[in-house]
Amino acid sequence: MANPTAAVLVIGDEILSGRTRDSNMHLLSGELTRHGIRLMEARVVADDQPAIIEAVNALRRQWDHVFTSGGIGPTHDDITADAVAGAFGVGIGIRDDARAILAAHYERSGLEFNAARQRMARIPDGATLIENPISAAPGFTIGNVHVMAGVPTIFAAMVASVLPTLTGGAPLLSQSLQVNRGEGEVADAFGALAAEFPDLSMGSYPFIRNGAHGTNLVIRGTDGAQLDAAMQKLVALFGRPQ
Amino acid sequence: MANPTAAVLVIGDEILSGRTRDSNMHLLSGELTRHGIRLMEARVVADDQPAIIEAVNALRRQWDHVFTSGGIGPTHDDITADAVAGAFGVGIGIRDDARAILAAHYERSGLEFNAARQRMARIPDGATLIENPISAAPGFTIGNVHVMAGVPTIFAAMVASVLPTLTGGAPLLSQSLQVNRGEGEVADAFGALAAEFPDLSMGSYPFIRNGAHGTNLVIRGTDGAQLDAAMQKLVALFGRPQ
Repeated sequence: MANPTAAVLVIGDEILSGRTRDSNMHLLSGELTRHGIRLMEARVVADDQPAIIEAVNALRRQWDHVFTSGGIGPTHDDITADAVAGAFGVGIGIRDDARAILAAHYERSGLEFNAARQRMARIPDGATLIENPISAAPGFTIGNVHVMAGVPTIFAAMVASVLPTLTGGAPLLSQSLQVNRGEGEVADAFGALAAEFPDLSMGSYPFIRNGAHGTNLVIRGTDGAQLDAAMQKLVALFGRPQ
Repeated sequence: MANPTAAVLVIGDEILSGRTRDSNMHLLSGELTRHGIRLMEARVVADDQPAIIEAVNALRRQWDHVFTSGGIGPTHDDITADAVAGAFGVGIGIRDDARAILAAHYERSGLEFNAARQRMARIPDGATLIENPISAAPGFTIGNVHVMAGVPTIFAAMVASVLPTLTGGAPLLSQSLQVNRGEGEVADAFGALAAEFPDLSMGSYPFIRNGAHGTNLVIRGTDGAQLDAAMQKLVALFGRPQ
């Protein structure tokens, strides 16, 4: 059975300007791989409503799941919830259950539950909430789109809330061999091995260390026995794992 | 005058699987900002020819420049040059000048210039070469698409070769103020300030440090005088820079 597919959409001018380095994409890619969901595409777009709507619609039509990161806070540049409602063509408004979660959080914290913070209870019609154990303001799932905060600790907590609710596939396994030769020396034999195992995916990743060229050869797939067989042949070709 | 726009397209299963964390996107975003080119979108796609072709064509039509990273080495999974030729509908073949650069490099290194390595001289028709001072194998520019290696040191060297040849815009400036308050407390006044300066872009980025909520308020634009004026008002609202 084929593994479910996913895309991640990171929303934020601060990533595109280079001010902040995104880490959510990398965190999610590892979590999805462990859960047997294949990340097929990632995008970063600006804090711009048409750009978000276009990306959400393109990605949700093409892949089984879409995970978004960023733009669900209380300030004027937090436009993700409205853009996602726009992408689905549904209304959006303050929802009682989200409002109650936030009201309780701010009462406990002794902070004012002001108009800006109440904005975070605005949820597209028909969505279900994603729990935020860190700062209360919920994410939400609508259709196959999971909308989460951009702050890395909160994003990670929301991923941990959502992933167990999704049907995964067979875990995506990988094995690798590092060789002290450039890609150009291993290319022919490695390509032939890849052709021999069409159900596995094989990639070669060159590196330079202390001025010397080396290559990581990586084999990926869901069938452990096939992976072992391919790895044995790889080791026979290029030597023991180092 | 509006700044030129750009997108970056990272090609590679190893990024999507979580095995490798991309760093080229972040490097490029900073370099472009310094050069006055506005990065508008980033994408990561798999080592899959139709996916690369679709992304190249979507991005080159929408933005002034597209920078790609990865997939131009000698192995079977290096399919970027063919995909870019496909996107432009042009032929591809081994080119004499690229072949000569590689032949000289391997002669100097004492390594065999074998068939796999000769593959790296395959360049789409009509492209110009991008110098690779590290491992010789050139990148190339075709139309508004700049095709570069994925190895971070080589990517950076190629960016340094290409950027001076492109017309930049006014440098994109930014100033920021860190406040020890949550976003919800600054949202109203910050949103009003953003509305007062429509030519500037203002973003708020919450963080949690030692359990306390804080916010970075960032103002971006190309007009230094406007930026200073907005920053003075921001400091008057929320206190001195810390």
